[in-house]
Amino acid sequence: MPGNLTLARADDDLRRPPTTSWLVEATRTVSYTISVSRDVFSPDNPSLADAGTAGADNTRRRFVVIDKTVHEIYGGLLDSYLRHHDMTAQLCVLDADEQQKSMESVMEVVRGLDEFGVDRRREPIIAIGGGVVLDIVGLASSLYRRHTPYVRVPTTLIGLVDAGVGVKTGVNFNGHKNRLGTYEAPATALLDRNFLRSLDRRNMSNGLAEILKIALIKDRELFERLEGFGGPLLDERMQGATPETEAAARDVLRRAVHGMLEELQPNLWEGRLERLVDYGHSFSPSIEMAGLPELLHGEAVCIDMAMTTHIAHRRGMVTDAELSRVIDVMHVLGLPVHHAGCTPELLVKALVDTTRHRDGLQRLPLPVGIGDAAFVNDVSAEELRLAAEAVAEVARAVPSGAE
Amino acid sequence: MPGNLTLARADDDLRRPPTTSWLVEATRTVSYTISVSRDVFSPDNPSLADAGTAGADNTRRRFVVIDKTVHEIYGGLLDSYLRHHDMTAQLCVLDADEQQKSMESVMEVVRGLDEFGVDRRREPIIAIGGGVVLDIVGLASSLYRRHTPYVRVPTTLIGLVDAGVGVKTGVNFNGHKNRLGTYEAPATALLDRNFLRSLDRRNMSNGLAEILKIALIKDRELFERLEGFGGPLLDERMQGATPETEAAARDVLRRAVHGMLEELQPNLWEGRLERLVDYGHSFSPSIEMAGLPELLHGEAVCIDMAMTTHIAHRRGMVTDAELSRVIDVMHVLGLPVHHAGCTPELLVKALVDTTRHRDGLQRLPLPVGIGDAAFVNDVSAEELRLAAEAVAEVARAVPSGAE
Repeated sequence: MPGNLTLARADDDLRRPPTTSWLVEATRTVSYTISVSRDVFSPDNPSLADAGTAGADNTRRRFVVIDKTVHEIYGGLLDSYLRHHDMTAQLCVLDADEQQKSMESVMEVVRGLDEFGVDRRREPIIAIGGGVVLDIVGLASSLYRRHTPYVRVPTTLIGLVDAGVGVKTGVNFNGHKNRLGTYEAPATALLDRNFLRSLDRRNMSNGLAEILKIALIKDRELFERLEGFGGPLLDERMQGATPETEAAARDVLRRAVHGMLEELQPNLWEGRLERLVDYGHSFSPSIEMAGLPELLHGEAVCIDMAMTTHIAHRRGMVTDAELSRVIDVMHVLGLPVHHAGCTPELLVKALVDTTRHRDGLQRLPLPVGIGDAAFVNDVSAEELRLAAEAVAEVARAVPSGAE
Repeated sequence: MPGNLTLARADDDLRRPPTTSWLVEATRTVSYTISVSRDVFSPDNPSLADAGTAGADNTRRRFVVIDKTVHEIYGGLLDSYLRHHDMTAQLCVLDADEQQKSMESVMEVVRGLDEFGVDRRREPIIAIGGGVVLDIVGLASSLYRRHTPYVRVPTTLIGLVDAGVGVKTGVNFNGHKNRLGTYEAPATALLDRNFLRSLDRRNMSNGLAEILKIALIKDRELFERLEGFGGPLLDERMQGATPETEAAARDVLRRAVHGMLEELQPNLWEGRLERLVDYGHSFSPSIEMAGLPELLHGEAVCIDMAMTTHIAHRRGMVTDAELSRVIDVMHVLGLPVHHAGCTPELLVKALVDTTRHRDGLQRLPLPVGIGDAAFVNDVSAEELRLAAEAVAEVARAVPSGAE
C-alpha cells in the first residue's frame, strides 16, 4: 500500500516545540470512465444496468434520482428498462432548479437513500438529469457512508460536456454558487445525446456556452466547427439531420469532452488554482447568483467570456477580427453577452470573491487569439468598467440571441 | 502530474455498446502531521499560531470553532494566546453533544465561516474540542469550497487517541451514527494532554476504552500498561503525579496513537473493509444510538468488546484467564460491560446493518488471546444471545465502574 507513516522522534520529554510527531502520508488512485452511449433506456443496451458494477455482483437494486421534467418525458421508458433488466429500483424524483440546489435537496436524497438501504460498494446510485441533479446526487453520494458509488446520466447539453464529466459536486449556499461541495468521481458517466431531442432551445444554448469555452481557451478547430455549424447544431439539437451535421455533432461533443478532461485530469483536486477551465467562471458565479432565476449558468458564463474577451482585446491579446468572430459565434449560439445586473460594482465584488477563492491572486484566464489563453493577476476596476460598457454597447447594437 | 487520460476509441459510430470512452485516472497524495505538544495555549508555544500554515503566508486570520464547555474553562487563556500572537480570530462556540452531531451543526459552522470569510488555502480553521466538535468541523472544512484546511486540537482523551488522529469526519443521521461524512485529513493535529486535567472521570474512561481497543487487537504491552497503571491513569487524568505514572501516561498515549496510525495509514480511505480498528465498533454504533443520551461512545465500544471477547472465548480463541484479565481491566478503567438496551434483538439488527456497511460480509474482528485479532464472517444469532447473557451475568456479579 503506498504512503508512509513516519515517527519523527519518540522522546516526548515535555520540551517545546513538540517532540513526538508523526507524519502520515498516503496515496489514493481515483479512476472513472466516461462513455458515449446512445439510447441508454433502450432495453437491449446493457450500459445502464451494468454501470458502476465492474468486478462486483450486480444485485440489481438501485436508488435512482431523476429530474422531475426528465421523469415526465422518459419515466415510462425508464420503468420498462428497469423491468426488462429485473431491477429493483427506488425512484427519487427531484424538482431541482438552480434555486433548489441546496443542502436541503441533498438531505432529501440521502433520506430516501437511507430508507431504501444500499450495500456500501456494489449498488451504485444512479443520477439522471442536468447539472443541478448531478451535482446534488454527487454530493449526496460522497456524504452517504463517506462514499457510495454513483453513476451519472446527464440529460442536458451542459451535463454532457461539463457537470457530467468531472469530479466536482456542490450546492449553493448563503447566496454563493457551489459554496459547499466535494470532489467525488462517479463510478462512470454515460453520455447519450439522444436526450437533447427533448431539450428546449435555450438550454441547448446554455450547454453550447461551455463548449465555446473549451474552444476559446484551447481548441481553434472546435471554434471553427461552432462557427460553421452552430446554427444547425442548435436547431437540430445535435441529432444530426444530415450526414454533415451528424459528423459535426459527434465531433463537437467528442472534442468538448476530451478538451475538458485534458484540463481536469492533471488537476483533478485543484491543487493548482490556475485553471484554464475557469475561463468564463471568474465573474459568472456572481453574475449568475445576482441574475437568478433569470440567467442560466451558461448564459452567465457567456457574459463573462464576452467581457473578458473585451478585456483581452483592449490589452492587445485578441485582434479586432477575432473579437468580432467570437461575439458573432455567441450570437449564433443564441447566447447573451450582457445582463442588466452585470454592473461595474458587481464585477469588482465578484473579482474580490474569486481572488479569495483562488487564494489571494486573480489567476484570471484571458483569451489569446482564438484557441489559446494566458493567466493574468492585474485586471483593474477600470478595465472591468470599460469591458462592461463595451458589452452593453454590443448588446444594444445586436439584440442577444438568434431566436 | 500522476495519472492518465486514456481515449479508448475515437469512433463514435452509433453502435452499441459505447464506442467512445475515456478512462480518467489520477493519483492524490495526502499527508498530515500529528504532534504531541504541551500547553498549546501558553503564549510562548507557537504551535497553534503556526499550525497548518507550512509554506504559506501566515495571515493570522482564523476561524476558531470551540466546544462550549472547553470555552468556559479555557476561553480566557485562548483569548490571551490569540492576542499575544496578533491573531484576528472569529470564535464559533459550539454546544455540541452526540445528539447535536447533525448536519444542522455543520451548517451553523459553515455559515459563520462564510460570514467571516477565509482565504482558500492559507487560513486554516481551528477546531478545539472533543470528538463531536472535531468531526463536525472536519465535515464543515471538507465541504466549504470543497476543502478548506483545518487544524485539530482535541481536548478529550477520546479526541487525543481516536477522533483527533484519523481522517474521518461525520455526523449522525436518521438515527444512524456517522451516517454522513467524508474522509478529510486535517492539516495537522496538536495533541496536548494538559487538557485532560479538566476532564471528568467518566470521559477519561470513555477515552481509555479506545486505548484498550488498540491494546486488545495489537499491543499486548499496552494492555499490560493498562493492567498495571489503569487506576492511576484514570485518577490522575494522565497528568503524571509521579515519575512512574508520568512515564506510563506518556507511553500509553504514544502507543495508542502509534497503533491507531499504523492501522489507518495503509487503509486511509477504507478501500479494505477488514479493519482491525473496527474492533468494538461492530455493534456499538447501534448500542450507542439506542442508549443515547445515556451511553458515551467509548462505553458502547467497551460493551461491544466485552461481548465479542465472550464470543471469542466460547470459540476457544481466548482462554478463561485472558477473558478474566480483559474484564478486570474494563472494570479498572471504569467502563461498563453491559447495558439494558443491549438486547439480542438489537444485536442481530446491529449486525445486519454492520454487514451492509461492510458490503455484505460481517468482517468481524474477534480477539485472539490478548494483543491479536482475526476476522470472522459467521457469527450467529445464537452466539450473540449467549454473549449478551454472559455480559449481563458479569454486570450483575460486579457492578460496572470503579467509581
